[in-house]
Amino acid sequence: MSDDRNFIRLTYLIEAAGDPEKLAKKIASDQSTGTFVPVPGETDELKNRVAARLTAIRPLPPAAKSSFPSGESGPFKRIEADIAFPFDAIGTDLAALMTIAIGGVYSIEGFTGIRIVDMKLPAEFGKAWPGPQFGVSGSRKLTGVEGRPIIGTIVKPALGLRPHETAALVKDVIDAGADFVKDDEKLMSPSYSPLEERVKAIMPLILDREQKTGKKAMYAWGISATDPDGMIRNHDIVLKHGGNCAVININSIGMGAMAFLRKRSGLVLHAHRNGWDILTRHPGLGMDFKVWQQFWRLLGVDQFQINGIRVKYWEPDESFVASFKAIATPLFSKDDCLLPVVGSGQWGGQAPDTYDRTGRTVDLMYLCGGGIVSHPGGAGAGVRAVRQAWEAAVQGIALQDYAKSHPELAQSIATFAGGKGA
Amino acid sequence: MSDDRNFIRLTYLIEAAGDPEKLAKKIASDQSTGTFVPVPGETDELKNRVAARLTAIRPLPPAAKSSFPSGESGPFKRIEADIAFPFDAIGTDLAALMTIAIGGVYSIEGFTGIRIVDMKLPAEFGKAWPGPQFGVSGSRKLTGVEGRPIIGTIVKPALGLRPHETAALVKDVIDAGADFVKDDEKLMSPSYSPLEERVKAIMPLILDREQKTGKKAMYAWGISATDPDGMIRNHDIVLKHGGNCAVININSIGMGAMAFLRKRSGLVLHAHRNGWDILTRHPGLGMDFKVWQQFWRLLGVDQFQINGIRVKYWEPDESFVASFKAIATPLFSKDDCLLPVVGSGQWGGQAPDTYDRTGRTVDLMYLCGGGIVSHPGGAGAGVRAVRQAWEAAVQGIALQDYAKSHPELAQSIATFAGGKGA
Repeated sequence: MSDDRNFIRLTYLIEAAGDPEKLAKKIASDQSTGTFVPVPGETDELKNRVAARLTAIRPLPPAAKSSFPSGESGPFKRIEADIAFPFDAIGTDLAALMTIAIGGVYSIEGFTGIRIVDMKLPAEFGKAWPGPQFGVSGSRKLTGVEGRPIIGTIVKPALGLRPHETAALVKDVIDAGADFVKDDEKLMSPSYSPLEERVKAIMPLILDREQKTGKKAMYAWGISATDPDGMIRNHDIVLKHGGNCAVININSIGMGAMAFLRKRSGLVLHAHRNGWDILTRHPGLGMDFKVWQQFWRLLGVDQFQINGIRVKYWEPDESFVASFKAIATPLFSKDDCLLPVVGSGQWGGQAPDTYDRTGRTVDLMYLCGGGIVSHPGGAGAGVRAVRQAWEAAVQGIALQDYAKSHPELAQSIATFAGGKGA
Repeated sequence: MSDDRNFIRLTYLIEAAGDPEKLAKKIASDQSTGTFVPVPGETDELKNRVAARLTAIRPLPPAAKSSFPSGESGPFKRIEADIAFPFDAIGTDLAALMTIAIGGVYSIEGFTGIRIVDMKLPAEFGKAWPGPQFGVSGSRKLTGVEGRPIIGTIVKPALGLRPHETAALVKDVIDAGADFVKDDEKLMSPSYSPLEERVKAIMPLILDREQKTGKKAMYAWGISATDPDGMIRNHDIVLKHGGNCAVININSIGMGAMAFLRKRSGLVLHAHRNGWDILTRHPGLGMDFKVWQQFWRLLGVDQFQINGIRVKYWEPDESFVASFKAIATPLFSKDDCLLPVVGSGQWGGQAPDTYDRTGRTVDLMYLCGGGIVSHPGGAGAGVRAVRQAWEAAVQGIALQDYAKSHPELAQSIATFAGGKGA
């Protein structure tokens, strides 16, 4: 039923006091046809039909400390193991893939560390799932921004503003020329700011400015809700009032709700991954972003928040760079690439390093909170300063030099360059 | 807007090389009104409306090793910190709760360890969510089992059997008197065993036996699917053919899909938590089951697989015991308790310890795979042996003694007592 090309291939980083190769074989066995006591009806024929196979082992330097606490003393042996699952054993269902190739693996006894570091899916997945509806080109078309990063900002404080208070802040930043504005991901539809009231307070400002200037700011509305029916109602409210984007807490709602939304969506879907960190922050445990993003990408995310250079939250720069490359590299076709959303403590100061380290592209959204709204010259100066920083980065001019003829950038440097970010 | 009683209260285990209390305050700030640069519009009034508060700190003994790898040397300071979120800041939406009080916390810089160890929700959550539709009493009514644990088994091998092959194995175990049978959680609807064909091959056997004996085995069908619409189609197939239970990979489908299913479900929902382990296996990171189960319980799980004593997969016995107590203790009312499903390497040998350590109750499902089907006297003897083990446990008779007059139990001991389990 399967030919040689038709396998789902995963790579596991396995760490153990004992023999890690034995554990790799155990993964292949447990996660397909294996059981612990021979049972009636188990034949070689059915085993061959769906059995997962260990196809390669690469030894890694041992670790002095174990990733999970261990009573045994080190060094702890480490390998990367490639396992191939016959396509027919899993099919294209992403929940089945998650359960069989990833979820169940974490419960196997004997590891001192286990991390999923790569996944290669056959072309059937590209056909079975919709992928992004808008992606990079749709985001550019809707914002009217070409040839430079889409520049966005976030309404802060995260919680507590009533709709009219949020609207006043939004008016400032769209008047300032921000291409994109978003609800903080923690703001969904609380009693002090129900989504519909917020939409009714803000969308007229956006449409009014569009009529006056021709420029429509993209606003990402916090439509996430546990109940998918409720989330669709939220989606419809935004669409009805002329909105074109939503921020989705993908990890909180889960894969099923994302699939449900994508089938019915007319909005650009901007993914926030809160909760993800605990699955990746320990380098010996969990999962690489490169693996995880494939699920959300197939499900239909358009824009993906992936931190940035020198962020204010946890993430090493090299991890961000790897995430950027993952979502900007085609999975099955160019159209399935997502718009990388670079954010967290950004103010323009990180533009040169971002540009140099992510392949010298401007196909990204650059999201600054305080870096725009707390600019001493106001939000308008903040937006101009960020654009100037990107002009300098693309032209290979040092920010300090470019700032000599660009006063807003000069003010930004004076204000934000001291700290870690904005 | 909030009085003193109306808070959502979480407890965080915080580990850090620096000052953990400072990080506790940072959680309270970041996850509600905080931002990093003073922004216009931020007033004390709105802060008070929704700001989270650090309400208590309990120092714990320091850790010699850090949970996340750290460049700093130990010992690492540890505290438990209670933080109260005003109910109005979050409301009853579970995705909002997960995002604000849990998800976002994992990304804060400066921890060497962070684990959510407790959560107390106000009564509004009990009113907003359906909770279990069947729970313990519904599971008993549908299986007709009273006064002892519901005894179940799993069809193995996990993957590869065609519907007629699965049916032959199921016939054996229902003829043997098993109260409950389930698809392996890895079996959903692959091309070699589409759910509908499997249902059509097996349900007639169950209904036929019900007609002959009056006893209807509960079969948990693997209806999980990424697309909630598809999952409902699977649900409807099972219901239409007379089935009454489904096994759901809750972590793979996510909270939204679970809410969607529960609203439309006529089946007992048996939760499998694959993938969960990576969120709890490191004791300094992630989340306690006691916290996580509250989400799934409010969403409407009826039966919850929680491992058992001396399991073949990872989990210390005390962790299992804590999980059992968590789901068997009322959250808001007795009706929201779930049926604990005790499984993994069980064969009856663990019955006495299970009974003694979980509060001397028989309100549980006892799930044995090889422990039933690989009994040397066949599956019928396997079921009888497990019942005998539980009779002995409840009567406080040692298994070896009870086995003297119960040959099936004696055979079980001879076969399975050597290894870790079955």
